[in-house]
Amino acid sequence: MQRIDGNAIAESIIKELTAEVGTLTGPKPAVAFIRVGDNPASVSYVRKKEKTAARIGIGSQLHLLPADVSRETLFERIDALNADPEVSGILVQAPLPKHLDETETFNRVAPHKDVDGFNTVNIGKLCQEDDSGFVACTPAGIVELIARSGIETEGKHVVVLGRSQIVGKPAALLMMRKALPGNATVTVCHSRTTNLPEITRQADLLIAAIGRPHFVTADMVKDGAAIIDVGINRVEAADAPRGYRLVGDVDFDALAPKASHMTPVPGGVGPMTVAMLMHNTLRAFKLAHA
Amino acid sequence: MQRIDGNAIAESIIKELTAEVGTLTGPKPAVAFIRVGDNPASVSYVRKKEKTAARIGIGSQLHLLPADVSRETLFERIDALNADPEVSGILVQAPLPKHLDETETFNRVAPHKDVDGFNTVNIGKLCQEDDSGFVACTPAGIVELIARSGIETEGKHVVVLGRSQIVGKPAALLMMRKALPGNATVTVCHSRTTNLPEITRQADLLIAAIGRPHFVTADMVKDGAAIIDVGINRVEAADAPRGYRLVGDVDFDALAPKASHMTPVPGGVGPMTVAMLMHNTLRAFKLAHA
Repeated sequence: MQRIDGNAIAESIIKELTAEVGTLTGPKPAVAFIRVGDNPASVSYVRKKEKTAARIGIGSQLHLLPADVSRETLFERIDALNADPEVSGILVQAPLPKHLDETETFNRVAPHKDVDGFNTVNIGKLCQEDDSGFVACTPAGIVELIARSGIETEGKHVVVLGRSQIVGKPAALLMMRKALPGNATVTVCHSRTTNLPEITRQADLLIAAIGRPHFVTADMVKDGAAIIDVGINRVEAADAPRGYRLVGDVDFDALAPKASHMTPVPGGVGPMTVAMLMHNTLRAFKLAHA
Repeated sequence: MQRIDGNAIAESIIKELTAEVGTLTGPKPAVAFIRVGDNPASVSYVRKKEKTAARIGIGSQLHLLPADVSRETLFERIDALNADPEVSGILVQAPLPKHLDETETFNRVAPHKDVDGFNTVNIGKLCQEDDSGFVACTPAGIVELIARSGIETEGKHVVVLGRSQIVGKPAALLMMRKALPGNATVTVCHSRTTNLPEITRQADLLIAAIGRPHFVTADMVKDGAAIIDVGINRVEAADAPRGYRLVGDVDFDALAPKASHMTPVPGGVGPMTVAMLMHNTLRAFKLAHA
């Protein structure tokens, strides 16, 4: 079994991006982060993204808004960043406080600066196989893991477990597109699927994104299948320093004897999302300066 | 086997729309058709749409542009119709002459008047399960046929044969959404699928949209499956008045003893598209006057 090292692959991408940014002579790419309120997870995510940007040579701006910020003030800030030629990409850190509509907010970011890939236009372009859009960082990271691990998808059966807007559906659309990685037969299953193990056992490549700890067990996968585990679930663990442990949707140890390739959790898909955000930011910069 | 009568179902929808339009006291819905050049199929399609609109009480405008019309002139016309409050919906009849980019042209139609559902924003909304958008007429018609024939989809396995932007992918997204008809396990297969009969035999509902005459044969379908045939293929037939006959992607006669429900070709999905265009036009009108 080939353990897919997401940390190492993300590091390769960061090195490639650093080298490319290093060759730029004129203006440099920059990403603007908007963080509303002080959700500890958001603070930590944004900090990690800032650090990675700095390593690569991508500039970053941090825009902090109070948790009770009005829709108007938030949108004014987004509009100003949309209009700012020095800002290549904009990321509004989720989750937002309840009084703000996330879809409406993500759609306020101009499509050509939507490095998070959440704008409706970019989702439509993904469906239309229009490469001019931005693919959301998690599904884009899944595609890179597949490509860089040598997992074949052409004519293979890819089973996606989960139908979310931000992972399951875009991953399915990417796997069925007329390009590689892609050109696969794709099945999307979910909570309403009646004969789940029968479906997942057909997978040459299983992408698990349902958010249930160790949901995928050994009997649900055929010998030789490749497995991408997108789940990051907290489970209580009295012996762990923080009282919990992070586990995937897949029971890694149980599947290890069967799988051809598998991502661990943590250290699989997780590290890829920040790398793909930086990839999207550099791409937004290049499109703006083409 | 229940033969799904697309003509009768389309007629029911047209009657419902006629009744609803009849209750409107103020302004009436209107659809603008833009036809570029004199392609005989386009002439015939637009005429059929005009006639159906007239029956329902939906106004229509026909904008004829020469086959060598410039992109600028075409876009000026679309812009004027986008801005015209008396126009509820706009349809640019495909195919366009080669010098005009269809995707760019369809995206010029304002999303809220895009009754054809081809604008990238409306495709993105479909993927996001945002009901405020317009679903393209063929996949919307498929959903109506399924709903009005009592075919269950909840937890069923729907296999979509074909991954086109205008039929296969939107139909798959509709069948996997968290609503009915939908909530199905969905497999999309296509020309690169290696073990096709093995996949299609799992279908509780098979949606065939690959454009190959009588491609689906009896051995590819399990007993009791429901079948929606989207294909409209011309095959030579010396005895037919025009020298050809229209046949579907499914061998109807061979499948008749096995299927639980099946659409004929012609008279299945075909008549639904015009009905759904009218449905979308009335909806655009209601959204504009809400």
